[in-house]
Amino acid sequence: MIEDKDIHVGIIGGLGKMGRWFHRFFAELGYQVSVADLGTETTPEDLAKTCNLVLVAVPLQHTVEVVRAIGPLVQNDALLMDLASLKSEVVSTMLEVSAASVIGTHPLFGPGEPNVTGQTVVMCPGRGQWWQEWLQGVLVEGGARVEVVTPEVHDYYMAVVQGLTHFSTLALGLTIDSLGVDIKNLKRFATPAFHRRLVEITHLLSQDADLYAAMPMLNSTYGVFYREFERIILDLKGVIAQKDIDEFIRLFDRARSHFRTPEP
Amino acid sequence: MIEDKDIHVGIIGGLGKMGRWFHRFFAELGYQVSVADLGTETTPEDLAKTCNLVLVAVPLQHTVEVVRAIGPLVQNDALLMDLASLKSEVVSTMLEVSAASVIGTHPLFGPGEPNVTGQTVVMCPGRGQWWQEWLQGVLVEGGARVEVVTPEVHDYYMAVVQGLTHFSTLALGLTIDSLGVDIKNLKRFATPAFHRRLVEITHLLSQDADLYAAMPMLNSTYGVFYREFERIILDLKGVIAQKDIDEFIRLFDRARSHFRTPEP
Repeated sequence: MIEDKDIHVGIIGGLGKMGRWFHRFFAELGYQVSVADLGTETTPEDLAKTCNLVLVAVPLQHTVEVVRAIGPLVQNDALLMDLASLKSEVVSTMLEVSAASVIGTHPLFGPGEPNVTGQTVVMCPGRGQWWQEWLQGVLVEGGARVEVVTPEVHDYYMAVVQGLTHFSTLALGLTIDSLGVDIKNLKRFATPAFHRRLVEITHLLSQDADLYAAMPMLNSTYGVFYREFERIILDLKGVIAQKDIDEFIRLFDRARSHFRTPEP
Repeated sequence: MIEDKDIHVGIIGGLGKMGRWFHRFFAELGYQVSVADLGTETTPEDLAKTCNLVLVAVPLQHTVEVVRAIGPLVQNDALLMDLASLKSEVVSTMLEVSAASVIGTHPLFGPGEPNVTGQTVVMCPGRGQWWQEWLQGVLVEGGARVEVVTPEVHDYYMAVVQGLTHFSTLALGLTIDSLGVDIKNLKRFATPAFHRRLVEITHLLSQDADLYAAMPMLNSTYGVFYREFERIILDLKGVIAQKDIDEFIRLFDRARSHFRTPEP
């Protein structure tokens, strides 16, 4: 039987941004933390064998392969958890290759946050009641909102929250580039709303392209949603080209009603 | 010769949001202000004949027709100006139907702003040096940034600043509606970036559909930009469907360079 005082956290990818964040998080709670990363003497295998909380904090596109490599080594009474932005494949892989407790986790915030207060963490429990209650407990005590859902529900909403959002922002940036619009002049004519859009574009383009490639390439729901986005754009473009004001207003009002859906 | 103390401002559409804003702006500067709107006893024609600063502050889609109706009545030494979000057609119409001084004006802010400090106002001077210097003077004295450009340059940048921005935000909202994604659940999974996107969508959908229909329907540049946006989306979707990570990164990096264009 694991007891709270015996928890030894091992972070694979512990020198990455989110790895460092969770290192600090667990260390501040008083737990022992060990780290493996490219170039550390300690290997992922070492952590998998010796720690009882094995946290996979590697880039999204490597999560499943790391889980496959180390999952079988994790002790039966330990917890295997990850931080990836997509949950279906990684949670089913963790359950498949390991006999340990399993929780898929997605912190909906970046490594710049000082702590977990007011932040949302999605938990997709796979196996093991004790660890689920423990993890939810430390997050809630730290002031986090915890959303417990299935990996499928998580991935569905992420297809909007990350999929459509990043896709439309990136497409807007690429279009401005492709049209050759001068950025310096563009800024002279920025409205407050466009200024905020520009900040979002610039912020997205300052991130790792790898991650933004991996998210949609690893979740087929994203593709379905992109197709709908493209269909809507084609429709809307047609309505505007035909100067069909009535249809434009009908579409606008329908979306307005949807976003005003009253609380149940 | 007009003198500053003789300026009598007449605002057509003076009970609308921007009309009221400019009423307050000019009144606080000490100028006499008269107003015409639907239901006022004073008519647009009255103002056109008697005022020496005739400000057309009606909805975008009615600006040109109002200018055609009252432009010929404006005195030769008066100023005819407007506030529309598109400038090419309205400035050429003002020049065509009136012999007065002409300035197309586009305040790049909403009626919620307390004053002009820190805000941008685009001026597209059509005719008349005295009025141009006067108007620029009162705006700059109030703390505004004034951008003096041709109507064509203004409309080109607005095709991005308003055209692409509103189009992509509206398309995102319509897609979420069309997919039937539950808004209450969606909010549970919002990242900070998505939360900001949701605020933009909700804000846009709370505005007048008429205005957002009129802007793209009255500026053909918008259509050209929408076509490019659609082409980019088709491209990007293909790159993702083919899991072509190298091409994704190439596109990402190209846009990143464009947005990082160094100051000349």
